[in-house]
Amino acid sequence: MSVLKNDLLLRALSGEELSRPPVWMMRQAGRYLPDYIKLRQKYDFFTRVQTPELACEITLQPVDQVGVDAAILFSDILVIPQAMGMTVLMEEGKGPSLPEVIKNQADLDALITTETEERLDYVMKALTLTKSELNGRVPLIGFAGAPWTLLCYMVEGKGSKTFDKAKQFCFTQPELAHALLQKITDVTIKYLKAQTAAGADLVQVFDSWSGLLSPADFKTFAQPYLLQISNAVSPLAPVILFPKGSWYALPDLANSSAAGLGIDWSLTPAMARQMSGNKITLQGNFDPSKLLAPIPQIKKEVKEMIDGFGTKHYIANLGHGILPNVPVDHARAFVDAVKEYGQ
Amino acid sequence: MSVLKNDLLLRALSGEELSRPPVWMMRQAGRYLPDYIKLRQKYDFFTRVQTPELACEITLQPVDQVGVDAAILFSDILVIPQAMGMTVLMEEGKGPSLPEVIKNQADLDALITTETEERLDYVMKALTLTKSELNGRVPLIGFAGAPWTLLCYMVEGKGSKTFDKAKQFCFTQPELAHALLQKITDVTIKYLKAQTAAGADLVQVFDSWSGLLSPADFKTFAQPYLLQISNAVSPLAPVILFPKGSWYALPDLANSSAAGLGIDWSLTPAMARQMSGNKITLQGNFDPSKLLAPIPQIKKEVKEMIDGFGTKHYIANLGHGILPNVPVDHARAFVDAVKEYGQ
Repeated sequence: MSVLKNDLLLRALSGEELSRPPVWMMRQAGRYLPDYIKLRQKYDFFTRVQTPELACEITLQPVDQVGVDAAILFSDILVIPQAMGMTVLMEEGKGPSLPEVIKNQADLDALITTETEERLDYVMKALTLTKSELNGRVPLIGFAGAPWTLLCYMVEGKGSKTFDKAKQFCFTQPELAHALLQKITDVTIKYLKAQTAAGADLVQVFDSWSGLLSPADFKTFAQPYLLQISNAVSPLAPVILFPKGSWYALPDLANSSAAGLGIDWSLTPAMARQMSGNKITLQGNFDPSKLLAPIPQIKKEVKEMIDGFGTKHYIANLGHGILPNVPVDHARAFVDAVKEYGQ
Repeated sequence: MSVLKNDLLLRALSGEELSRPPVWMMRQAGRYLPDYIKLRQKYDFFTRVQTPELACEITLQPVDQVGVDAAILFSDILVIPQAMGMTVLMEEGKGPSLPEVIKNQADLDALITTETEERLDYVMKALTLTKSELNGRVPLIGFAGAPWTLLCYMVEGKGSKTFDKAKQFCFTQPELAHALLQKITDVTIKYLKAQTAAGADLVQVFDSWSGLLSPADFKTFAQPYLLQISNAVSPLAPVILFPKGSWYALPDLANSSAAGLGIDWSLTPAMARQMSGNKITLQGNFDPSKLLAPIPQIKKEVKEMIDGFGTKHYIANLGHGILPNVPVDHARAFVDAVKEYGQ
């Protein structure tokens, strides 16, 4: 394994005082990059995800073209339901759909939970290839969807503003819901462990829909499974948890085994530090829409954000995925502003 | 004007200690009620909104059939952009669309800001008729969309997960954005004043998309206009502000002229009380999806909610609009649980 030439991200997660924070962007390998769009025109979604050479090429694009301090593997959270035997359709510009949803015990029993990491070997191959191609330039991030967020898709069958079918499933059949969440958790732990063995220097768990849950329901249906994953994977590599919208969970999660917590832009840096008690590395939280602002304003607000969080225990990032309509030079301005901090 | 037989809602807003809180539900006049669906099959959306007899009939349905402690006029927040001269299309089940959006100064100049309350006279007629038909049974709530939320639709042209076009407009043309927000505010103040004259006992301002803004941007693009409206209308009738998702604004808004603040279910009652300092009436915050749970669970959680908020300075409600797929007896169980509190 090559020694990392840029290990800022790992040093931020271990709590070192740095002269400037590391920076990467959620969904940085994707839709706003013209070279990605060219590949999208040639190969369908799951071909891009399942072909290690394509996933590697897409993963490296923002490292080469935008100058981020970390690579995050190009993949999708729905590879887990797929590996568990569910059909996942991905229509360009329409979001995912799962035509056969989980409704009852029989559906749950039909899910595959063994050898899923073998079925996801294309992810491991992509990680190993990307790690080799990076040649130590920056760390490589692996990831998975959180159990609650995967349940949302596996029960609702598609994206939703409210995921009320998924919530109804949890509220009316809580035992079945917990059994499903546990199955997803078990598979995810094996998956993330395999990712670290294959080359991921750290992993992030995306709980994109946790903010739809009340604080009490988050503690019931989301938090226990996030913690199981963090506890199981942390001995192998640092874990960042990103429960989007669940600002209320910061005090609890700050006392967990996770090395970092992602936060969205509904919190000021001061609020986030107050809630998390300065004990854990925070990651975020630039409003993705702000990258549509003029470049001087982006640079000014990035500086204010870092002033707010400080350079210790902090990773500069967006508060959610980069939008497809962001000009590449605006994304670069965001990254440059972080790199210029303190100069 | 008839004397109110049930004035619980007004007494909660004025801070009286009550034996149980008043209860109503956002969107209570609407899609989950079979009698509403029958009218929807006969009359299109704007016919229902613009015909005082139909709006009155729909407004009374939940008072008669679900037993809420207040009526809220059946109408829509987009009647304001419409009265300002914009085309608003409402396709059943697809959400609103505004084919000609605001892009520049000329679009702004073309907006009508005079005699808008005369153009909205059908709303005043509906309020007066409903007030008369209610005959003092319960208070009548008028409402409007907040300027930021209306800007979202007037610039984006349709619903959106991120409203990034609207945000881009604000971030790249802030002076134009503020001019638009001020025009909407001026029209809204006249509109809400006319509503109180026509029979509304109180009014609510819905900032449905304020939670998409960072705390700093909320203070720039949402809060000043909410406060202008509250300051102008409060001398005539109590004002409830509902900036959905903007929990971070509670401390500031608790010190405003508003009589009440709506909150969503991302806060526990204790968090909400802590942030608002026990000075203002809070309204909410039952997860609308929870009405899909079994009735005993609904009743249990309603009791816990009221235990948390207390019976002073509190209005029981959902944290957002009732979902169309909620069974009527579940809605009734929610209302009954509030009424049974303390018995």
